[in-house]
Amino acid sequence: MLNAPPKESRSKAKSLLMNLQEKICNKLEILDGKELFKEESWIRPEGGGGRSRVLKNGQIFEQAGVNFSEVYGSELPQSIISQRPEAKGHKWFATGTSLVLHPRNPFIPTVHLNYRYFEAGPVWWFGGGADLTPYYPYLSDVRHFHKSHLQACEKINPNLHKVFKPWCDEYFYLKHRKESRGIGGIFYDYQDGSGFLYKGKNQKGLAHKISNEIGELEFSWDNLYSLAENCGNAFLPAYELIVKKRSSHEYSNKERDFQLYRRGRYVEFNLVWDRGTIFGLQTNGRTESILMSLPPMARWEYGYAPEENSREHYLTQIFTKPQDWQNDKNLERFCIENGIFD
Amino acid sequence: MLNAPPKESRSKAKSLLMNLQEKICNKLEILDGKELFKEESWIRPEGGGGRSRVLKNGQIFEQAGVNFSEVYGSELPQSIISQRPEAKGHKWFATGTSLVLHPRNPFIPTVHLNYRYFEAGPVWWFGGGADLTPYYPYLSDVRHFHKSHLQACEKINPNLHKVFKPWCDEYFYLKHRKESRGIGGIFYDYQDGSGFLYKGKNQKGLAHKISNEIGELEFSWDNLYSLAENCGNAFLPAYELIVKKRSSHEYSNKERDFQLYRRGRYVEFNLVWDRGTIFGLQTNGRTESILMSLPPMARWEYGYAPEENSREHYLTQIFTKPQDWQNDKNLERFCIENGIFD
Repeated sequence: MLNAPPKESRSKAKSLLMNLQEKICNKLEILDGKELFKEESWIRPEGGGGRSRVLKNGQIFEQAGVNFSEVYGSELPQSIISQRPEAKGHKWFATGTSLVLHPRNPFIPTVHLNYRYFEAGPVWWFGGGADLTPYYPYLSDVRHFHKSHLQACEKINPNLHKVFKPWCDEYFYLKHRKESRGIGGIFYDYQDGSGFLYKGKNQKGLAHKISNEIGELEFSWDNLYSLAENCGNAFLPAYELIVKKRSSHEYSNKERDFQLYRRGRYVEFNLVWDRGTIFGLQTNGRTESILMSLPPMARWEYGYAPEENSREHYLTQIFTKPQDWQNDKNLERFCIENGIFD
Repeated sequence: MLNAPPKESRSKAKSLLMNLQEKICNKLEILDGKELFKEESWIRPEGGGGRSRVLKNGQIFEQAGVNFSEVYGSELPQSIISQRPEAKGHKWFATGTSLVLHPRNPFIPTVHLNYRYFEAGPVWWFGGGADLTPYYPYLSDVRHFHKSHLQACEKINPNLHKVFKPWCDEYFYLKHRKESRGIGGIFYDYQDGSGFLYKGKNQKGLAHKISNEIGELEFSWDNLYSLAENCGNAFLPAYELIVKKRSSHEYSNKERDFQLYRRGRYVEFNLVWDRGTIFGLQTNGRTESILMSLPPMARWEYGYAPEENSREHYLTQIFTKPQDWQNDKNLERFCIENGIFD
C-alpha cells in the first residue's frame, strides 16, 4: 500500500537536492584548492530547468561536474509509463542532483553520485546512489567507501544495504566487456515505501534474491527522504579521505595511459548502457549537462591486455568484479601480500 | 518481385568483401609508409568468424582498423525479423567488410566504409556505403569524395546516388547534437533489387521523398554485386587523393585539440546511434573488433564553442550539415573567399 507524500513534498525534495549540490560543490572547491566551479543555469522549454556546475583543470580534479535539475511536464515518457502504469495521465515532476568527478591523478578514483525524486499524481518515488571507479585501487579505500554508505543506509533500516549493494553491481555492469564499471557502492530506484526493496528487472540477480528473502517492507515518505539525505551526506566524507590519501602518489605516463584507457570504459558504460544518459539524449535533454559525465580525455587501444600480475591486471581481475569487500578474507590477504591493502 | 540469388551467391559475396579488405589494406600500408597491419582471426562460437586487421601508430594513421567477417546461425535477431519478416525461421548468413581510419594530422579527415551482404532462405540483400568526417575541410576534397561515389553508383543506375546521398546524411546524424557526423557520402541498406530504393524508416526525410519520385526499380543480384564492387573500389582513390594533399599540412596543439574534441562526437555517434555497433555489443559480438571504430584518443569539453568565423566555426556551421556540395554556388563562393576551397 502506497503511503501518501506529505504536503510540500516537491519543494522539500527540491531543497534537499539543491542543498546537496551546494554543500558538495563548496567542499570540492576546498578539496581542490585551486579552481572554482563555474555555474550555468538553464531553462527547459517544456518545463523546469537546472543549474550545471563545472570545475575544470583543477589541482585535484581534471574535471568535476555537478548538476541539479527540476523538471516537469504533462506527458510522461513511455519508458516511465511502462515501469509505473499508475502514473499515466498525470502531470509529472522530477528533481535530481548528479555528479561525476574525474581526478587527474590515476591513484584517485573516478566517482559518481545521483539522487532523485519523482512524482506523478498519486505515484512518487526516490532513487539514487553512489559508486566508485578506481584505476589503482587499495582495499582499505574500497572498504571505506562501502562502509560509509552502509552506515548511512543502516540509520534507516539494516536491510536496505543488503539489496542496494548488489543492485549497484548489477546496474553498473558493462555486458559487452563482462566487467563491472568499478567497485560499486549503492544503487536504488522506484522506492515508494511499499513492497519489495528491489524494483529492477533482473529477476536472476542477487539483489532480487536477497530482496525476496527479506520480504515486503514499509517506509514512510520521510524515511526515504532521510535515506537520500543520509546517503547524500555520506558521500563527501567517503570520497574525501581517499582523495587526501592518494593525491600525493607519484605517477608516470604508464599510469596516466592506463587511466585514460579505463576512462574509455566509463564512456562506453555511459553511452551504451546508462538508462539516464540514453534517455536524456534521445528525448531532447540538455546535451552538455548530460554529457558532463564524460571524461575530459579518454583512450581506446585495440587488443590491450594488462601484463600478468601487474597492478593493471589486478584491476581487471579483481576490482571490476562484484566482491564481498568487507568480509572476503582471501581478498584481504591477497591485497596485503601485494601491497594494495592500505 | 524478389529475384533469386545466383548459385554460389554466398561465396561470391564473401570473396568480394574479403578481397576488398585485402586490397584496401595493401594500399593503406603503402599510403602510410611506416607501419603494417597486424591481423587477428577469430571464430564466432555460434557460427562463422572473422579477420580483424589493425595498423597502429603509423606515419599517416594513428589507427586504421579494417574488419572482415562471415557469420551465420539459425536464429535471427529480433531487429532483423521486424524489418524483414519473410526471413523468419530460415538459417541466415551475413558477410561484411568495414573500416574506420583515424589519421593523426587534423587536416586529414576520418573516414568510414562498410559493405555487407545478407541471406536468409529466399531473402537476401546488399547494404553499405562510405562517409567522410573532416575536421578542417576543403570543399574540393568534399566534392572529390562525393564525385567518386556518384560515379561508382552511376555505372549501375543514374538514380541510385540521388537516394543514397541523402540516406547517408540521415543515417549519420547525431540527433542530440543536431549535427551530421561529417560531410556524408553514400549509404544504402536492404537492397534486394525490388521496390523503392529507400528502405529505411524515416518517412519524413529527403531519401524517402526522392525515392518515391523515382518510383519502383528492378535490379538483378549481379547488378547489386557490381554496385558494392564499384563503390568498394571507388573508396581508396576517393580518400587517397585527400590524404596526399593534406598530409604535409602543419598543425599545432590548437588543431590537434579540436580534432580530439570532434573525435568525441565520433564516439557519441557510434555508441549512441549506430545500429550496427549497438546491436553487436548487445548481442555478444566480438567487442574488440566492433569497437575498433573508436578513436585511439578523444576529448570532451563542457560548453565548448568555436570562435566566430574561425575554421572550427565553419566546421560546425557548414560541414556538419547536409549540403549540395557539388552545385551550391554560395557555398563555393564562401569557401573560395575564406581559403577553404582547395
